[in-house]
Parts: sequence; C-alpha cells; structure tokens
Amino acid sequence: MNFHGGDVYKYDKKLLDFSSNINPLGVPTSFYKALQDNINEFTKYPDIQYVQLRQNIADYLGVQSIEAVVPGNGAVELLYKAIQQSGKNRLISLKPTFSEYARAALQQHIEYVPVDAFAEEYTDVDIDKLLAAACQDSAVIICNPNNPTGTLLHKERLLQLAAGLREKGAMLIVDEAFMEFTPEYPEHSMLDQIESFENMIIVKAATKFFGMPGIRLGYAISGNKMLLQGIQESMEPWNINTAAVIAGTVIFKDEEYIADSKTWINSERPFLYTALSKIREIKIFQSAANFHLLKVKSDGMDAARLKELMLQENILIRTPDGFEGLDNTYFRLAVKDRPSNIKLMNALDFILNCKNK
Amino acid sequence: MNFHGGDVYKYDKKLLDFSSNINPLGVPTSFYKALQDNINEFTKYPDIQYVQLRQNIADYLGVQSIEAVVPGNGAVELLYKAIQQSGKNRLISLKPTFSEYARAALQQHIEYVPVDAFAEEYTDVDIDKLLAAACQDSAVIICNPNNPTGTLLHKERLLQLAAGLREKGAMLIVDEAFMEFTPEYPEHSMLDQIESFENMIIVKAATKFFGMPGIRLGYAISGNKMLLQGIQESMEPWNINTAAVIAGTVIFKDEEYIADSKTWINSERPFLYTALSKIREIKIFQSAANFHLLKVKSDGMDAARLKELMLQENILIRTPDGFEGLDNTYFRLAVKDRPSNIKLMNALDFILNCKNK
Repeated sequence: MNFHGGDVYKYDKKLLDFSSNINPLGVPTSFYKALQDNINEFTKYPDIQYVQLRQNIADYLGVQSIEAVVPGNGAVELLYKAIQQSGKNRLISLKPTFSEYARAALQQHIEYVPVDAFAEEYTDVDIDKLLAAACQDSAVIICNPNNPTGTLLHKERLLQLAAGLREKGAMLIVDEAFMEFTPEYPEHSMLDQIESFENMIIVKAATKFFGMPGIRLGYAISGNKMLLQGIQESMEPWNINTAAVIAGTVIFKDEEYIADSKTWINSERPFLYTALSKIREIKIFQSAANFHLLKVKSDGMDAARLKELMLQENILIRTPDGFEGLDNTYFRLAVKDRPSNIKLMNALDFILNCKNK
Repeated sequence: MNFHGGDVYKYDKKLLDFSSNINPLGVPTSFYKALQDNINEFTKYPDIQYVQLRQNIADYLGVQSIEAVVPGNGAVELLYKAIQQSGKNRLISLKPTFSEYARAALQQHIEYVPVDAFAEEYTDVDIDKLLAAACQDSAVIICNPNNPTGTLLHKERLLQLAAGLREKGAMLIVDEAFMEFTPEYPEHSMLDQIESFENMIIVKAATKFFGMPGIRLGYAISGNKMLLQGIQESMEPWNINTAAVIAGTVIFKDEEYIADSKTWINSERPFLYTALSKIREIKIFQSAANFHLLKVKSDGMDAARLKELMLQENILIRTPDGFEGLDNTYFRLAVKDRPSNIKLMNALDFILNCKNK
C-alpha cells in the first residue's frame, strides 16, 4: 500500500494541493525552452552511460568526479537500490519519516526498525539512540531535513552518526531530497564528506527543488565505488528518460530560478509559520524544509475530518497515513506561494474557528 | 557489460544510425503538441496508480480490463520484473536473441539456457527443442519477432509452446517489442490469448513503433493477476515519467502516424532486402521486423572491420557483440527511410565491391 501526498487524481475538481511538497514556482522556463528545442532527442535511446548527465550533476553539486555520481529514475529508485545494495539486513530510521523506507525494507525482506529519537517538538535528534540500535548488519537512513517533521539535523550531528556507524561497520544513507530548501543550504549537506565516509551514500532529488516531480530525476553520490557499481548493475538500462536528460542540461545552471526559489522559501516559510501559529486550534512545528507538520487541537476534530472540510474549500492537505508514530491529529502542509498560503490560512481559520463552532 | 545498438554518443560526428531499431518517422506530431500543451503536468507527481495511462494502453491493445495491464519505465524494466517475479530459477531463450535476457538472469542469479532451436536461415523455430529444455522451474522467453534474426514465430507455434509449458507448470514470457512492424500484425500477437494461458505474460514497448525510445514506456499484459501484482509491488512508485504519461494520451490514437508507419515498413523492408540481396559479398536474412540480420562473406572482412569502414561513410552498423551464437561475420541493420536506405546500400556496395579490392 502506498501512502503519499499529491493524490489529486481521485478528486473530480481542481484542488489547491498542499499535500505534496513541490516548489510552487513551477517548471523552470529554461527547461520548457530546452524541451521544445530538443524534442527530437526522444527519437534516440539515451546514452546508456549518461556521461553528460552525470557531468552536469557533478558540476552542480561541486563533486569532483562523475564516478561518484549515479543518476536514477527519481530519488526513490536510488533509495531502494541503496538499501538493497548496502547488503545490510536491518534498516534503522527515524520515527516518523518517509514511508517508502519501510516499503523498501519490506520488499527486500529485511528488518525495519523505526526509532523514536526526536527531541521534544521535533527540534533535534538523539544520535546515541540511533547508534544504540545499530550493529554491523545495519544501515541507518536519515531524511534530512526530515519528512514530515521538517527537522534539520545539523552537520555535527550527522558527522557524529557517520563516525559512530563507521566504527560499527554499519552504513549511513542520507536522503537530502529537501536539503536545497533549508535556510543555510549547503551548510548541513554531507556532500563534502563523501571522501571521509566510505560507509555513507547520499541520495538527492532534482524533482522537488526544481518543481517538477514528473520528470523523474534523482542522483546518488558516494565515495564508495563498489557500492555505486552495485547500484548501477542492479538497475535496468536506459532507466532515465530523455526529458530528465534534457532538464539536466539547463536547470542546474538556471541561476534565476534557483535565486527566485530561495527568495520564495525564505519569505513564505516564516510567513506561513507565523500566520498559522496564530490559530489557537492548531499547533505548528518549526521546519527547515518546504512543508510544516501540524497538529489539530480542537475537540472532536482530527486530520481526516479536517481534510474533508478543507476539500469543501478546494484545498488538499496531507493526513498522517503511512507516517508511523503520528496519531490522527497530525497533518502536513506544503509551503506554497503567497496567494495560496493566504487562502489556506483563511480556510483553516474559517473551519476551525467559525464553521466548527 | 551492456551491448546495444544506438551508441551514437561515443562518436564526435553526426552519424546515420542503422544500429538501433527505431521507427524513422520520428516523434509523432501529436506527442509534440501534447507535450507543449501539458508541460505544467511535470509540476505534479504522476498518478501513482497510472489509471488513465493503463486505460489508454488497454484501449489501444483491445484488452478488456486495465487490471490486465501494468506499465513500466520502458519494456526492459518489465522484462526484468517478469523474469524475477516468475519465481523460476531457469530462464530459457533462443540463441541468438536480445542480450538483456541473459543480463537479467545473471542479475537475479538464475540459470540462463540459450537454445539453438532455429531452422536454417532463421526462418522458423523448433518448439520441441525449447520444450525439451524446460521443466517446472523454467520460464521460456521469446522475442517475437526475434532480435536480431527477424524471425517471426507464427501463432500456432506460440500456442504449441504456451500449451506445452502450461503442461509442465512452466512459464512463457513473450517480448513483442517489434510486433507492430510485422506485415500481418496483429495476426501473430498472443494478446488475445491472455485469458487462455495464465502461465503467460506479454511485454510490449511503446518506444520502438512510435519512434521515441527516450520516452521510456512499456507495458506488460497477462491474465495472471497474481503475477502482475507481484510485478507491480516489485517496482518503485512513480516509475513512469510525465512525458510518457502525456505520450500515452495521444500516440495510441494517432491513426495517421500508425498508418504512415505501416506504409513505410511494408515498402522499405522489401526494398532494402531486395537491394542488399544484390550485393554478393553479403548474405541478408529474411525478416518480419524493422531490421535485418546479415553476414559478410568477403575474405578478410568481418563486422568490426566493416563497422570501421562504414563509420568513414558516417554510417553506424550493429556488430554482433552480446548476441550469443553469432560469429564476428554477422551484423544487424535497421530499416530506415528511403534516402537513408539508399545511402546505406551505396556505402556497403562501395566498401565491399570497390574500396576493399
């Protein structure tokens, strides 16, 4: 069973989708133009080695060699393959976190151990708790910043975790799908540590920050050549489509889009946080990502009921299905553009303060 | 190691690519228009169930229910998953055939048994030989028409094979990637037999006939719901990109493109066959597909040398690397448009009859 946001397909009407965490600036115009100019590229098989794509990714990330980069059909393909190719039989994660880690463990018949290691209000993580659960046969997977809590593990925490796991002969998988949305980016990314920790692999997504999940483009980066080779060999040939290859030629150099995105998130995340903090019937948690975890505090109201009421206002929210450790009063909201955020704020206020009385 | 045609990326100059078997009519204009009109679809995650895409495929194929259809990230993803989810530990194939079957068996640590079951000049297949190699733990995979020989197994042969395998409790995987190019299409497709043979799964590609391998769209069809469910569960979510989903809304209904493609292949395949038959230094085999297997008969010449010489004429041919059972005098040529076919013919004639003397 899949539990995800963004499931707008089962509703007949047009919805304002706060359930999926995508940059609302939309498709970069550089991609739009490149796609039009290169449509005949679809008539060829993509380069089976994806040399140019890997170079474009390496340049963007500041990674020295394309040998350290493996692209995938979305970050999720690489997460599955990284877990599989780690060769470990125990996958340790935070609780709550992205539900696909549990699904990957289930699919690969390995033990899944979600650890409740969060400090109060999801502001930090107790690394010792994670380390205590790990042995040589373990891989620890960290979503940083974490989905759905928005918790950003600072680099010193990750370094402590990576070193502790290395000592045990265990692995670390860091899912940085939302890292570009963090205020201090790239300060807390582990990208510059790949040579120091051979027991680490980082998985990133092009699709969220660049506003186009439909493109399907993710990349894994590691200093562990054997692991990358195993991942490469476990994938089918031509797994990345031409639209993603074309995107890779332009989006990473689209400085205007990148700057606009930073301006947007650094303005709208605090705006939404402040605005929603004023609604007494909900509790909003601090976040370093492009979404917020919230909790409804009204008597007789839960996330499922709130979702129904918000749908009447043509707004889709993310209920906690699939997030282990969250009861049914929790929900998640993406940060969108100002007019949408205001609509959301007004709808929540209306439902919780007026309609519900 | 991957061995495939279409590797134009390692050459600096623009080549006429006869090494990959793609419809030369190019991207359907209906797709070009739909992509422009729907570019904002990339900002959403695709429908995780791909309901509309599966319906479009079912309608095109004349399959009753979308429950019988699983789409994939290219046909090759589905071939790997079908082999894996068959649960068999022995994969039997024709020799020579598409090299990915051997790679899939290797990746999944199952036995790979290529059987030399061809009649003389690859005109037919001895089904009893294939059946003799099969036991309950076997899956037999047939590429029909076969790559690289162009052999079309007629339906009575496939029915004999499917029934024989059913009796043994063995499986049949039919790869119909090139079926739409056959003169009698859909006469020899097994699509209308899915309800009769629960031990059978058919894999097809949208990418070859519709001239756009870069799109990555294939589909598996079976009457075996358990098998399809296993395949679905073994795949990562959102494995099909938005460009492929958009293509699915228009290409299957693009009657002009389909008609033009049939006109082209029914004219150019016999044209190329007749033309190349006249060159005494090569032997060309009959084909029902959009490519021909050939053999060079000149003393001191082999496919690798011929490839080098043809590259000087800016033409890329497919040497037999990866095709078990073919010595280094064999090569493969795609059928392209008339001007390209004439250039090919002249270049071959020049190299084999003049330059080589």
